[in-house]
Amino acid sequence: MHLTQVLDRAVQMKAGRTALICGSQQQTWAEFRHRVTCLAGAFRALGLAPGDRVAMLADNGFPYFEFHYATPWAGGVIVPLNTRLSDPELIYILNDCGARILLLGPEYAARRAVLEAGCPDLRVVITLDGEGPLACETLIAGHSPMEDLRRAGQDLLAIIYTGGTTGRPKGVSLSHSNLVANTLAVIPVNEFGEDMVYLHNSPLFHTSGSARLIAAVSCLSTNVILPRFEPAAVLHAIEKHRVTHIILVPTMLNRLLNCPEFQTSDFSSLTHCVYGASIMPEAVLKRALALMPGVRFAQSYGMTELSPSATTLPPKYHVLEGPNAGRLKSIGQALMTAEIRIADTEDREVPRGEVGEIQVRGPMVMQGYWGQPELSAETLRGGWMHTGDAAYMDEEGFIFLVDRIKDMIITGAENVYSGEVENALHEHPDVRECAVIGLPHADLVETVHAIVVLHPGRKVTEAELIAHCRGLIAGYKCPRSVEFRADPLPLSGANKILKTQLRQECLARLTPG
Amino acid sequence: MHLTQVLDRAVQMKAGRTALICGSQQQTWAEFRHRVTCLAGAFRALGLAPGDRVAMLADNGFPYFEFHYATPWAGGVIVPLNTRLSDPELIYILNDCGARILLLGPEYAARRAVLEAGCPDLRVVITLDGEGPLACETLIAGHSPMEDLRRAGQDLLAIIYTGGTTGRPKGVSLSHSNLVANTLAVIPVNEFGEDMVYLHNSPLFHTSGSARLIAAVSCLSTNVILPRFEPAAVLHAIEKHRVTHIILVPTMLNRLLNCPEFQTSDFSSLTHCVYGASIMPEAVLKRALALMPGVRFAQSYGMTELSPSATTLPPKYHVLEGPNAGRLKSIGQALMTAEIRIADTEDREVPRGEVGEIQVRGPMVMQGYWGQPELSAETLRGGWMHTGDAAYMDEEGFIFLVDRIKDMIITGAENVYSGEVENALHEHPDVRECAVIGLPHADLVETVHAIVVLHPGRKVTEAELIAHCRGLIAGYKCPRSVEFRADPLPLSGANKILKTQLRQECLARLTPG
Repeated sequence: MHLTQVLDRAVQMKAGRTALICGSQQQTWAEFRHRVTCLAGAFRALGLAPGDRVAMLADNGFPYFEFHYATPWAGGVIVPLNTRLSDPELIYILNDCGARILLLGPEYAARRAVLEAGCPDLRVVITLDGEGPLACETLIAGHSPMEDLRRAGQDLLAIIYTGGTTGRPKGVSLSHSNLVANTLAVIPVNEFGEDMVYLHNSPLFHTSGSARLIAAVSCLSTNVILPRFEPAAVLHAIEKHRVTHIILVPTMLNRLLNCPEFQTSDFSSLTHCVYGASIMPEAVLKRALALMPGVRFAQSYGMTELSPSATTLPPKYHVLEGPNAGRLKSIGQALMTAEIRIADTEDREVPRGEVGEIQVRGPMVMQGYWGQPELSAETLRGGWMHTGDAAYMDEEGFIFLVDRIKDMIITGAENVYSGEVENALHEHPDVRECAVIGLPHADLVETVHAIVVLHPGRKVTEAELIAHCRGLIAGYKCPRSVEFRADPLPLSGANKILKTQLRQECLARLTPG
Repeated sequence: MHLTQVLDRAVQMKAGRTALICGSQQQTWAEFRHRVTCLAGAFRALGLAPGDRVAMLADNGFPYFEFHYATPWAGGVIVPLNTRLSDPELIYILNDCGARILLLGPEYAARRAVLEAGCPDLRVVITLDGEGPLACETLIAGHSPMEDLRRAGQDLLAIIYTGGTTGRPKGVSLSHSNLVANTLAVIPVNEFGEDMVYLHNSPLFHTSGSARLIAAVSCLSTNVILPRFEPAAVLHAIEKHRVTHIILVPTMLNRLLNCPEFQTSDFSSLTHCVYGASIMPEAVLKRALALMPGVRFAQSYGMTELSPSATTLPPKYHVLEGPNAGRLKSIGQALMTAEIRIADTEDREVPRGEVGEIQVRGPMVMQGYWGQPELSAETLRGGWMHTGDAAYMDEEGFIFLVDRIKDMIITGAENVYSGEVENALHEHPDVRECAVIGLPHADLVETVHAIVVLHPGRKVTEAELIAHCRGLIAGYKCPRSVEFRADPLPLSGANKILKTQLRQECLARLTPG
């Protein structure tokens, strides 16, 4: 399957129908394809050679879709950039991947000079606004369509940088085959189809957003684009465009349910919601099931290195009664295309029920980390992707994520999985958001520390929350200390709670000076 | 994706659940996988080297499933044999592919001596019954499981011989990638899933049966197997096993609807019916829609060289009213994985609405014809599979099959597509089955000849049927002659009406001696 040829198929089947919607603007499939082929022509005229990297720093919008298709059409490799990164981080990434072209959104125009100064190999900066010779519209208007170079198979499609919690960002090299595998695997389990109206509310620079963009376009669905996630805007877009499918990470779903507009919005068109990317507190999910009974929820587990999906928990397990109940805490079972095992530190499969590392084999596993052969070999040793996530598998292949291995707290002789403690905290009706981290301790190695945001107007004490946890989980797992915050917890570009930042803030307080 | 690894996934997720049902016997997924790994071990012990061919001559049953998985597990290539072929044809195929091992069903035991005598390279004949040292059960019991050799990608999976209407059978070489592409493409459009109960009533030696076997096993569905197609047995199996999904070629569907047991059968479990392989008379389809309102019908078009599917007409177009009506005569649109064009004899795409040849590009296109590089290059010239089927495409990419190019009748200066005439004949309430062929004629090149089977007790004359056609299609397309038969028309192994045989019978009558 060629990812780019779906645009030819789109024009064959629905040339005049709406492909993309953003704000008050729309593009038909014929317009979208035409713009892609002309932008590809411009890339070639600007000297892009097959395999060259094209980076993009912008909020969600039409240009993100055009970038995803024009780049491979011209033979290039996409490098979507996390808009939350600092200048030095962006400069590191642009130089690391050797980007030749950068597409720059108007929101980030002020950063142009410093990026250009720091990146000598960057030949061209294309602006998404304005009218200059290197403005995107000028280029599309001024170039003829080029023929699709038909990149496919093991050809590189994308380098997507992941933050990691330590060290430099790593560029994950994903091939066309990787994204084809993800596309074909997620379509049936997430019940994607041609009649879908998909809301792209997650950042398109993130693997999840990028891969869903490709899957939704491959289905020839209608694509509604929001510049960024904002709960009220999401609810408004669902109502206005009769959105059917959405993807939300747990923090997004929580904020949507807590948004005042949620009470008055018409989301009757919404039939499907996929969630993933971090552990879903069961209390949040149960609340969503109760408040959104017409929505078929499905969980997806993965990571950038897996293009990104490896498991699914289908809608039928999102029930509180009957034979399929009791799976809500699971990230589901292996996708048809994935081989998954839970292994010990020697890469031996552990018995069902024992905690080990999730390891994945299959066509969705990345080619490696860009320019890092040793790290790639280590991560992919024995042919298996070592995810660094701790989990166990039950007798029916359901996988229960316990934590990122690096988020595991070691207290005394015990391992505490922060997700389990967060789940317990979320069971308390006053808790709106929470994060659990380990703080250094002389005797115990670490102690369990909780950072909590309460619902407005609620009051609960540290002692009451700890007592609440004691009723649900073992004493050694319960927080030793609870810190209350008024503001929402800081989120990463992928809308995961930034535990690294929280840990650093706490450490800074503990070590004065 | 590894086609064989789905058995590991099956054991991970549902080891103790039923995988296969045939008559009164059942196999769990754990049993199925265990038998496959032991049979693979036996193949290796018998000297099978990676890439060696293993043939099978048998009716549908558990061994057909084991053959499909044990062969690639041991590194081999499957060669399913059409049970209707003559001894010389089978000998030609076994020698052409150089089969090392033959699995022989008890129904065909009498042909063993002549096949062995004719095939000096055939080392081992494994019998599916009995107790000798080379009986299948003895081999499975006597060998340990072997590790999966993990054949994948461009490794050859199957050589499937197609009759063709002239000349020797051609071996179609299909890779693992080819069948992965078909599996992943058909699952969403045919709404396959884990909870499916699939009835394998079509011959498993045919590509369609073989590819559906692989797709249904990949879904970990429950598989009900019938030794062969027989309308009453199909209805009985649907009722007994609560079958949800079935595939029927037009002649099968017609015979099912005409079967006396159809009136009294409970087929309420049946939710999905895929049809394809030859042109579906619209009258038959409309009757099916009326009589089976709970069934979601979908059409699939393809051929062995396409592994086999390239298009789909989804259930939503199987309606007689509303905006989706008017598509029943179409074979649908290109599958997501397929690129399809209608081209002239110079391989130039023709305008929408004009008749040309269906040409297909994509991961489902065969590697080529076994041992026939020139024929392969000709058939795959320019990177496109030349199907030999004549069709036109409308403005929304719906493809309308008009005929096999070789079944096209040339009469006077006009081309007549036999499918169109058959459609008109099927509109007559007395017509049960029909086939239209061209008979040689001195002036007109050919004349249109119809062979018709009437419903029991019905009477209609040749003149009346021709007059009926005149009310529906142009005069030059109407039959010049109609021949009535009492017996059902002869069918090929793929349950298509054998027009070649009908043509030969008519020619024999026309040219005495």
